[in-house]
Amino acid sequence: MKGHGAHGLHLDAAVRADAKKRLASVRGHVEGILRMLEDDGVYCVDVLKQLKAVEGALDRVGALVLKSHLTHHVATAAGRGDEARMVDELMELLKYR
Amino acid sequence: MKGHGAHGLHLDAAVRADAKKRLASVRGHVEGILRMLEDDGVYCVDVLKQLKAVEGALDRVGALVLKSHLTHHVATAAGRGDEARMVDELMELLKYR
Amino acid sequence: MKGHGAHGLHLDAAVRADAKKRLASVRGHVEGILRMLEDDGVYCVDVLKQLKAVEGALDRVGALVLKSHLTHHVATAAGRGDEARMVDELMELLKYR
Amino acid sequence: MKGHGAHGLHLDAAVRADAKKRLASVRGHVEGILRMLEDDGVYCVDVLKQLKAVEGALDRVGALVLKSHLTHHVATAAGRGDEARMVDELMELLKYR
Repeated sequence: MKGHGAHGLHLDAAVRADAKKRLASVRGHVEGILRMLEDDGVYCVDVLKQLKAVEGALDRVGALVLKSHLTHHVATAAGRGDEARMVDELMELLKYR
Repeated sequence: MKGHGAHGLHLDAAVRADAKKRLASVRGHVEGILRMLEDDGVYCVDVLKQLKAVEGALDRVGALVLKSHLTHHVATAAGRGDEARMVDELMELLKYR
Repeated sequence: MKGHGAHGLHLDAAVRADAKKRLASVRGHVEGILRMLEDDGVYCVDVLKQLKAVEGALDRVGALVLKSHLTHHVATAAGRGDEARMVDELMELLKYR
Repeated sequence: MKGHGAHGLHLDAAVRADAKKRLASVRGHVEGILRMLEDDGVYCVDVLKQLKAVEGALDRVGALVLKSHLTHHVATAAGRGDEARMVDELMELLKYR
């Protein structure tokens, strides 16, 4: 979770607040799955469905942050002259999903 | 997180223990991102990378549970005669990722 | 595209026929994108949408084949005693998507 | 495969040429799978592996086009004043994968 002072770009405050609220709910959901896993009769597919639901919620947090990043930092990159860096960083991020 | 008594299948104990340990670590990771989001200078891409890392960790928990489910419940389905149900359930689960 | 004689399992004939029909349509779709790419005014996002549509069609072919495989080969694996092999093979296949 | 004259943005010529070459190879790969499917002894997993390889090749074509789009059209959006449109279009595209 390294610094980023060099370019001075940071996550929009409203999006950051929304992401925090959603991520707190994700934490609650993970705790719910941890409780499910206390039950020795828990069924695999019920666990898998909950894991998938958490991944969906994380995707939605990611979509918020990505949309903000595209709008405030990528769409303005040519104006700053750092488009190569911004695009490489974004391609790296999108690569594995 | 509905019941499943009807078929009596449940998650293998060793896999359940491993999943719990890994999911506790996922919870810690989510808490780390929540702390990142306290910082008003946090950079979007640093958040996105951490969200992706958490999704990767959830995928690995899911892979453990899925492998156990395939081995203990799907591969034995023809013997029990519930292969149509087991396969439909699995296809539904795999659909959106 | 190696052989598989060792275990004698093969794709169900009706599914094979359906997969062929769908894959011929995928080929037509790919040819449509090749024609789009002849146009020097083609817009990136229009190409990306078509690529995504082709991937969706390939996913649907894959889902047909996977469902048949699960039903006819994985659900019967315990009866043959090759569940470890069948499950490893399947986990490998599901890994990267 | 609708027009796009309104904004006058189009795919970079070198990327278009590279995409054509790669997509011609994808077509050949699809034809290879069609031939595999002529064989009534073909094994499901061999088909699934080839479908996955084709999807990987399509992903690589998509990555080329996306990188070019980000560099030439998204990173310059603030300068043109169409960042909302460009970002919405991109988010829609990224949504289902």
